[in-house]
Amino acid sequence: MTATSELDDQFHVFDTTLRDGAQREGINLTVADKLAIAQHLDDFGVGFIEGGWPGANPRDTEFFARARQEIDFRHAQLVAFGATRRAGAKASEDPQVKALLDSGADVITLVAKSHDRHVELALRTTLDENLEMVRDTVSFLKDQGRRVFVDCEHFFDGYRANPEYAKAVVRAASEAGASVVILCDTNGGMLPAQVQAVVATVLADTGARLGIHTQDDTGCAVANTLAAVDAGATHVQCTANGYGERVGNANLFPVVAALELKYGKKVLPDGKLREMTRISHAIAEVVNLTPSTHQPYVGVSAFAHKAGLHASAIKVDPDLYQHIDPEQVGNTMRMLVSDMAGRASIELKGKELGIDLGGDRELVGRVVERVKERELKGYTYEAADASFELLLRAEVQGKPLKYFGVESWRAIVEDRPDGTHANEATVKLFAKGERFVATAEGNGPVNALDRTLRVALEKIYPQLAKLDLVDYKVRILEGVHGTSSTTRVLISTSDGTGEWSTVGVAENVIAASWQALEDAYTYGLLRAGVEPAE
Amino acid sequence: MTATSELDDQFHVFDTTLRDGAQREGINLTVADKLAIAQHLDDFGVGFIEGGWPGANPRDTEFFARARQEIDFRHAQLVAFGATRRAGAKASEDPQVKALLDSGADVITLVAKSHDRHVELALRTTLDENLEMVRDTVSFLKDQGRRVFVDCEHFFDGYRANPEYAKAVVRAASEAGASVVILCDTNGGMLPAQVQAVVATVLADTGARLGIHTQDDTGCAVANTLAAVDAGATHVQCTANGYGERVGNANLFPVVAALELKYGKKVLPDGKLREMTRISHAIAEVVNLTPSTHQPYVGVSAFAHKAGLHASAIKVDPDLYQHIDPEQVGNTMRMLVSDMAGRASIELKGKELGIDLGGDRELVGRVVERVKERELKGYTYEAADASFELLLRAEVQGKPLKYFGVESWRAIVEDRPDGTHANEATVKLFAKGERFVATAEGNGPVNALDRTLRVALEKIYPQLAKLDLVDYKVRILEGVHGTSSTTRVLISTSDGTGEWSTVGVAENVIAASWQALEDAYTYGLLRAGVEPAE
Repeated sequence: MTATSELDDQFHVFDTTLRDGAQREGINLTVADKLAIAQHLDDFGVGFIEGGWPGANPRDTEFFARARQEIDFRHAQLVAFGATRRAGAKASEDPQVKALLDSGADVITLVAKSHDRHVELALRTTLDENLEMVRDTVSFLKDQGRRVFVDCEHFFDGYRANPEYAKAVVRAASEAGASVVILCDTNGGMLPAQVQAVVATVLADTGARLGIHTQDDTGCAVANTLAAVDAGATHVQCTANGYGERVGNANLFPVVAALELKYGKKVLPDGKLREMTRISHAIAEVVNLTPSTHQPYVGVSAFAHKAGLHASAIKVDPDLYQHIDPEQVGNTMRMLVSDMAGRASIELKGKELGIDLGGDRELVGRVVERVKERELKGYTYEAADASFELLLRAEVQGKPLKYFGVESWRAIVEDRPDGTHANEATVKLFAKGERFVATAEGNGPVNALDRTLRVALEKIYPQLAKLDLVDYKVRILEGVHGTSSTTRVLISTSDGTGEWSTVGVAENVIAASWQALEDAYTYGLLRAGVEPAE
Repeated sequence: MTATSELDDQFHVFDTTLRDGAQREGINLTVADKLAIAQHLDDFGVGFIEGGWPGANPRDTEFFARARQEIDFRHAQLVAFGATRRAGAKASEDPQVKALLDSGADVITLVAKSHDRHVELALRTTLDENLEMVRDTVSFLKDQGRRVFVDCEHFFDGYRANPEYAKAVVRAASEAGASVVILCDTNGGMLPAQVQAVVATVLADTGARLGIHTQDDTGCAVANTLAAVDAGATHVQCTANGYGERVGNANLFPVVAALELKYGKKVLPDGKLREMTRISHAIAEVVNLTPSTHQPYVGVSAFAHKAGLHASAIKVDPDLYQHIDPEQVGNTMRMLVSDMAGRASIELKGKELGIDLGGDRELVGRVVERVKERELKGYTYEAADASFELLLRAEVQGKPLKYFGVESWRAIVEDRPDGTHANEATVKLFAKGERFVATAEGNGPVNALDRTLRVALEKIYPQLAKLDLVDYKVRILEGVHGTSSTTRVLISTSDGTGEWSTVGVAENVIAASWQALEDAYTYGLLRAGVEPAE
């Protein structure tokens, strides 16, 4: 189970997603989830994966048993977490300590109290006995051939209350053989300058190898971790995507990226930083949380540019507008179209879509005006690429792309006495010189319109059968006029090989949905290479 | 328009949610949204609200015109943002500079280039002309009686490339009369130690009053802002909830909380910090983003504790497990436990609503079950107090409160060839032994149903005439089934003296809206003291 890695032991990237990260409200991991995450973390190349608290939790016990058999760790060592022995007992006879050995983990993190009031109020023992609990448990586990790290819980608050006692715990752990003593900001209230000062002093006064564990309650967990490294800590405890109790823990990804890219410190195996975006999203999928679009380095928005002001210079030199090359972390730059967009971003977007605007200033100006005017009405093009492309093509060709003309449509929703609903739609269309009238039902009025449109058109456009509506979002744009507000609908459609989004805006949700559906089908036919023919 | 505040000018909390924050991907603010946010920010007590770029964007121009008339600012001064004059022109003749004056804002933030390569590549002018553009524009606006702040864009990258030039821009702005020169980490790549060193040096070398503007690309925007304050900056630029381009800006709330609670620095009017959680959530509602549950200080999870190990000690002394008292920021501690907590909170809620549950364990248990079962289907009672009260009363009385019985309803949306829509609804009801059939039109199907319900019932319930639908929100609960997803509708209704919210969930938006409307009217009649009579 011991991993081999090209990295030496001088600096530790220690992940605690599976133990501390799992305490996030809304996360509930199965053993299979934990195994999948451990595999991702090992792929990423962290040095240590804290897997849980064997003995305290049957799921964690099972995880250690299965991880040993099922995962061939290439980079990481698996770590079991547990507490120092109970007061007044012997470590060698403590069943909870035995469970740590039984987990088979080569490395064990012991949590120890280092805040005097916590010793008295939570452990209900004396300050001296707490030191003895640390010494006894560390020595015993060392004697059993395990490497031991000690987490000093509530260290920073404890240091403020009683610095001598807090340091005595660090010394007790270190002298008993703990190879790293981790200072934990358990309540998360620290700021970087404070962390840096405390770590520097404790390092000077104890000589112990120090690690850092921070929580994000002040929004400074990443900075606090880096401040500790600046002061001499050589072991950082983090969680993937910053998952953790309350606000969360120090986020592994920006910590590692800062160390590698800003400090120039090699903390991951070669080439692994480029996997970061993929691994962040994969772990979010396993824990069943939507990946944060705005997460540093790895969010889909992290390198997205909106302002028209910048776009012209981005063309000249993208590095002027990015703090790193997004490829270094496996992410990509994106240009967004919006009403702040100027000419340059329209041209760039055209190029991205393969539409040559040929430096036609008047044409580009017309597109900019059209986008601004439509966004003022509530349209949004940054989330509706396909509608933007249709708008762009309409301006380039001087007329909208049309596969069909709409004479009228109607949707009826009827409540029946038994509580069910009938949803029926009728559309009247022209296409290729013919008139089509169709009626269909659905489980809602938009679904009924969607089906009716297919029924009407599928004889002449069989390609429509492949289209599938995969997402549907509604937004009321001015929430102060009650049900007479403007409504914006965004629809995502797939043809099995790709996905596109379209937008509709109208005074009611059905009419807005219809617009987005029209664009969705028009774009789908364009993608399928069908010749326009109204 | 000048605000009066008990705070002096020594330290500025400057909010740029409406300008830089609006660049976040997915945010698209209407003028009404901007006015609502400005009001919330003024309520919170920030010193400056940057409203946008008048002249560059018709929406921003309109915002300034309407803000001057419609908002009576009590704390904040409104700030217009714009660029220094064009190269080779005169500030006094630059239409863009004129638009800043026309906005009527007393304070103007000018963005200036301070990175030599940006001057050459983006502005396409000389380094000297850029300095002249700063001097000329600042002097001209000062002469016109405006207070001027200067944002040095890309300052930190510029300082690294050419520190002398970057400082020359600061000097030019300050000497021309800018009252604050803001160092901007526009690309967001800095770490706190770097920010602190640069700010300290620039302050020592130029003597200018300095501000700080950071972006969160390294996950350190809050810490970078505080590092600048540590080095002597006396003006912090932030956005509500950290909204902003790419990853976002420095989040106003943790910055202000750190200054007030950790630095002991008074930066808000008395009592305003306690409004922070409410204001953070209210602004998220306006921009239509779900408030982040894990945001420092203000997230619903920010003071949530998983029970177990800590529970007994938390009872003895909650301060051992919290870095601040959550009430200081208007948040609350939550224990995440079993349905025991559910029971307690249902009883508490009953008391709050004046409904005596009389310690009836079986009744409370039934309510807990009912809430769980409904929430599983997509209902949410946190945001729909009135629907919750109706549910509670139904369980207490053994039957739902009924003012009318619904036989059936129907809504028709019809697209006309001229592009307009006809929206017509019909309802068939029973009330007080009579049958009512009514039809009405509206500007959408829900509006038509709303009007029809009033027409049908107003003869027997004249109180309904006073009700007004003030907000309407639609959410698709499962975004992977396209238009056949479940839909949740929240409606807020007012009777002039109070406002209440109701919820409906169904397979289509019209049916969900109808449910929420039924609850809204039932609750309105209950509030009006009308006796139920089906």
